[in-house]
Amino acid sequence: MSISTTSIEQLSINAIRTLSMDAVQQANSGHPGTPMALAPVVYTLWNKHLKYDPANPHWHSRDRFVLSCGHASMLLYSTLHVAGVKKADGASEPSITIDNIRNFRQLHSPCAGHPEVHEAAGIETTTGPLGQGVATSVGMAIAGQWQAARFDKPGYDLFGYNVYALCSDGDLMEGISTEAASTAGHLKLSNLCWIYDDNNITIEGDTELAFTEDMPGKFRALGWHVIEVADANDLDALDAAFTEFKKTDDKPTLIVVKSIIAWGAPTKANTHGAHGAPLGEEEIAGTKKAYGWTYGKFEVPAEVYEDFNANLGARGAEAKAKWDADFAKYSKENAEAAATWSSIMSGELPEGWDADIPSFPADAKGVATRASGGKVLNAIAAKLPGMLGGSADLEPSTKTGLTFEGAGDFEPGTYGGRNFHFGIREHAMAAIGNGMALCGLRPYVSTFFVFSDYLRPALRLSAIMKAPVLYIFTHDSIGVGEDGPTHQPVEHLAAIRAIPNVAVFRPGDSNEVGACYKTAVELADRPSVMVLTRQNLPTLDREKYACPGKSAKGAYVIADCEGTPEVLLMGTGSELSLVIEAYEKLTAEGVKARAISVPCLELFYEQDAAYQKEVMPCEVKARVAVEAGIQQAWDRLLGFQGEFVGMNSFGASAPAEELFPYFGITADHVVAAAKKSIGG
Amino acid sequence: MSISTTSIEQLSINAIRTLSMDAVQQANSGHPGTPMALAPVVYTLWNKHLKYDPANPHWHSRDRFVLSCGHASMLLYSTLHVAGVKKADGASEPSITIDNIRNFRQLHSPCAGHPEVHEAAGIETTTGPLGQGVATSVGMAIAGQWQAARFDKPGYDLFGYNVYALCSDGDLMEGISTEAASTAGHLKLSNLCWIYDDNNITIEGDTELAFTEDMPGKFRALGWHVIEVADANDLDALDAAFTEFKKTDDKPTLIVVKSIIAWGAPTKANTHGAHGAPLGEEEIAGTKKAYGWTYGKFEVPAEVYEDFNANLGARGAEAKAKWDADFAKYSKENAEAAATWSSIMSGELPEGWDADIPSFPADAKGVATRASGGKVLNAIAAKLPGMLGGSADLEPSTKTGLTFEGAGDFEPGTYGGRNFHFGIREHAMAAIGNGMALCGLRPYVSTFFVFSDYLRPALRLSAIMKAPVLYIFTHDSIGVGEDGPTHQPVEHLAAIRAIPNVAVFRPGDSNEVGACYKTAVELADRPSVMVLTRQNLPTLDREKYACPGKSAKGAYVIADCEGTPEVLLMGTGSELSLVIEAYEKLTAEGVKARAISVPCLELFYEQDAAYQKEVMPCEVKARVAVEAGIQQAWDRLLGFQGEFVGMNSFGASAPAEELFPYFGITADHVVAAAKKSIGG
Repeated sequence: MSISTTSIEQLSINAIRTLSMDAVQQANSGHPGTPMALAPVVYTLWNKHLKYDPANPHWHSRDRFVLSCGHASMLLYSTLHVAGVKKADGASEPSITIDNIRNFRQLHSPCAGHPEVHEAAGIETTTGPLGQGVATSVGMAIAGQWQAARFDKPGYDLFGYNVYALCSDGDLMEGISTEAASTAGHLKLSNLCWIYDDNNITIEGDTELAFTEDMPGKFRALGWHVIEVADANDLDALDAAFTEFKKTDDKPTLIVVKSIIAWGAPTKANTHGAHGAPLGEEEIAGTKKAYGWTYGKFEVPAEVYEDFNANLGARGAEAKAKWDADFAKYSKENAEAAATWSSIMSGELPEGWDADIPSFPADAKGVATRASGGKVLNAIAAKLPGMLGGSADLEPSTKTGLTFEGAGDFEPGTYGGRNFHFGIREHAMAAIGNGMALCGLRPYVSTFFVFSDYLRPALRLSAIMKAPVLYIFTHDSIGVGEDGPTHQPVEHLAAIRAIPNVAVFRPGDSNEVGACYKTAVELADRPSVMVLTRQNLPTLDREKYACPGKSAKGAYVIADCEGTPEVLLMGTGSELSLVIEAYEKLTAEGVKARAISVPCLELFYEQDAAYQKEVMPCEVKARVAVEAGIQQAWDRLLGFQGEFVGMNSFGASAPAEELFPYFGITADHVVAAAKKSIGG
Repeated sequence: MSISTTSIEQLSINAIRTLSMDAVQQANSGHPGTPMALAPVVYTLWNKHLKYDPANPHWHSRDRFVLSCGHASMLLYSTLHVAGVKKADGASEPSITIDNIRNFRQLHSPCAGHPEVHEAAGIETTTGPLGQGVATSVGMAIAGQWQAARFDKPGYDLFGYNVYALCSDGDLMEGISTEAASTAGHLKLSNLCWIYDDNNITIEGDTELAFTEDMPGKFRALGWHVIEVADANDLDALDAAFTEFKKTDDKPTLIVVKSIIAWGAPTKANTHGAHGAPLGEEEIAGTKKAYGWTYGKFEVPAEVYEDFNANLGARGAEAKAKWDADFAKYSKENAEAAATWSSIMSGELPEGWDADIPSFPADAKGVATRASGGKVLNAIAAKLPGMLGGSADLEPSTKTGLTFEGAGDFEPGTYGGRNFHFGIREHAMAAIGNGMALCGLRPYVSTFFVFSDYLRPALRLSAIMKAPVLYIFTHDSIGVGEDGPTHQPVEHLAAIRAIPNVAVFRPGDSNEVGACYKTAVELADRPSVMVLTRQNLPTLDREKYACPGKSAKGAYVIADCEGTPEVLLMGTGSELSLVIEAYEKLTAEGVKARAISVPCLELFYEQDAAYQKEVMPCEVKARVAVEAGIQQAWDRLLGFQGEFVGMNSFGASAPAEELFPYFGITADHVVAAAKKSIGG
């Protein structure tokens, strides 16, 4: 295959390549080699296969393209630019301008070092941390299958779409990608296509240094269809591969594309030197010469725009117009289904969605918040048709199954169900949640709290992407009991509270569970984390103690003295009842105490100063915080005079009721700490 | 195969089963099904194949047995008991007594819910979080190969050993296990054998719900030899499988064993009801009847002890005696090598190990701490023969390559090297580090700080196990620059400081790098985390500012005023120079300021109160902490009056030098914060 041709295909492909090279050079930072290698792949996919209307980049039923190897971000930005993708549906401004590309990797440019989903239309998900993109793409494929299964009617093919993810060796070395691939293979997601850039180069050198898997064999073992393309520059082979993918209706497809990094570069092609650094002016000149490229820096010939407009653009406009017409017809024939689907996609909560959240009678024996959580979740999900999710093989323990009529299981080939069996694959589960959320659904995912560590990179991406994934973590402390230190979260509350843009809820009894779920579901621009107990907690008498409605403010006074308190007692979750017990004991002793429930520290910090001072007056320096985790997140509220009752080590294996006294987490210790704090 | 036989093999196997059933029943908590299913596997391995001397459970060259499915802990405890494993080398007391087993899952019993490595001899690693055991076993196998390659001489076979790991569906669904298996396959670790309990049962029900991989096919694609055993009760087939493993000298082996969970239980066999709950007295009675078991609760017939003694015990004693004799001969012929190996295994640091740590001249332009870190690491490793490690495909960036003569690469079949190419598999890398540490080596592992999230479950296990793994994390803040928010750690310092028993170092210049490395290497009973910059930092003039020797105390006064300071300025890493700059500005303005370097918060908190007050006098309430991360970990030192200069959001994509001012992390802001804090 000749390196330079005068065909319009080559011209367009080389435009993507040269824009990418120029941008990396201008930024003096970035990854030029992969865009140069894979431009033919992206060109063929976008211009010949993708169901995508550049004039309506948020069309719900568009095919999704995920650049899992996010470091190759210029490949995406260049493509969005030449493809004429607009800033918003119906907008006239481009999503990515040449000026944006000139400012690649500069402050305020939408062309960030790695693609950030909210920076520009056409970026379907934030990528960069390896493996996340491919795993997220599984969630997108699931969302497509689910919508098709739930809403398509005989004679209609409106709601499904295909999902393509371009990935690197690095993506596929990460464990999360195998978890995700195993899930996709199990579920037979035939609308999913991963394209593996098999270039044999990593940062330390040749992949042979550390990576010698039989990738096709592995994916076949995971239940995938595998297609091999021997040369990334063979446009016919690429075209045939995508056609074969679209015909494959019983399993996901992996297209293995052999490529040469920095293809065309005279001295840096096929070297890891071209991976993460600019080529240099001289090498760029040589490359452009090899491409037969005669245009200026950042210049795109008009024919390139026309090429995309005539193919992708025309095909997309026609598909979108047909979709609009079909959906109008569908809506007449299926008014309720159309309204339901539109309601889900609007992201707005339907009226009365929270009407059935149960309230729980006062009960000293009480109930585990995972159990009341399951009831509340069901009451909400029954009214929120886009809410769906599951657990990493712990549903009987996390109590997150949807049991109402019609909920059903999401199973291979039967995609209408709302209960997911993610398997023991926490990390992929969370990334799949991200993909579902990015496609307009309201997913929840669930496991034991201690295993939140396994999915942390995906949770961080939920936060960066402002994706409203609901994380339900049960078994939240030494209350786990006999399973011992490996299963007892100690540092996890602090560790998750540390992540910006996450709301962490730890409700103190079953009625707070209801209030916290309500607040969490209303938070549409951030992930929420619901932290629930294994063990029973007393259901507080809310005629005696303040009702939990103010949980939405993060903290509220639940029991109070007359006048200014001598001491503030604050707690969360299973320790709230210890706070109340200590409050009662102190009150009986004549100590003026205030009990404060703090179900969500982040939301409390977001209240105005007046509310914060109302709940925790600055002048009251005697304070005690009680939580069966480490102290770190509480210091801000405790000052130098405050006391903490909680954990400062890993837990132990023993019945839970023995562990709380063993680690000193008792009402008597709270009382003693209060007196100590008052004493100064 | 008859369910009950009168053979001694069946008697011993059934002793393991019944002890396990009885213990779970007594605890009213635990997992009986897997011990019942796999007792024949463990029996065959231990009694017929394992190179293990029960009288010397810490013999360095023993074969290792890892119970990766840690929830089946009673299988291990029962086996250690019947096998006669002693409490320590040469001790007469058993490691696990019947009384210990009676107290399964109770406070202070060594028989914790999941195996904890320091609770009893014979527990090789802490397991429970799924996938960790198998991944750790790869590190153990590497340690064996490395010792054999480095120290065995012609005619000797002293230092190698085999590593066996028993694992469940859950282990193999976790991404970490594929990362680890891919690594082991790549490295052709023929001393590694995983035994996969293929029982088709998980917590949510049948594995078919979520898990339909072709496991043998997948492992073959990963470069493993696969043996299938159709029935866990077929002792001959098991025996043949282990024999075949031992003969396989070019790749790791997976033995797939079809088993029936709770084998022999009349109603619960082959149900997920037998996974995580006691069988109940009636079911136990029925099971014992099916086994033909006529002994009392917790009773072990004398023949069982004799069986193990006559086989495992005799074989182990002979092997150990031969080893001792061979090693004595070896030591005479190879005195230096023997001394080196003994020194490594002693865990003690050789005299002068820190003599070559370089010092760096004052330099305003300075050097990145990742770069000085690389020099310090090399200076130490050159004198510590058991120090070895590598990076997750980022060595050119993390600067963690060992470059001195003889360091070499650890490569497939060539196992003497000290540089590891872990591939883009952070999670397995850290677990492999745990395995190497458990076998007496001093491993370091390395990646970008933001990707510490990918390995967090293994880091937590390092902390629980007190394993001295050195984590080297570079690119530690928004100083990453153009790569943007996905690559910029913000919450990671707080999140790792939250884990008990970890020491997190963030040195403020190259000379502090040296001091921190020295301290970290001296911490033999916990993991250390070294957090280093991408960007250059000024090398402070230590004639003007205090020398970094007190880094070992976690914090020290680096520049001070006369008399009591009005304000304390504290900082770490790249922000230490801002603290110094602010100190100089304030001093010039006549404000009495003290600058404090805080390279390790944890060690500072561990100092006595006198030292803490000496550095940070209680009466000085005006305080500023400066760190390009979130505030959470600093609140304890700041009180209500302190100010924080750092991050409260994710970062952005731009050159690093623009990001620090953009996020307000400048000396001027520190000065302003100091004045605000003084103002109260």
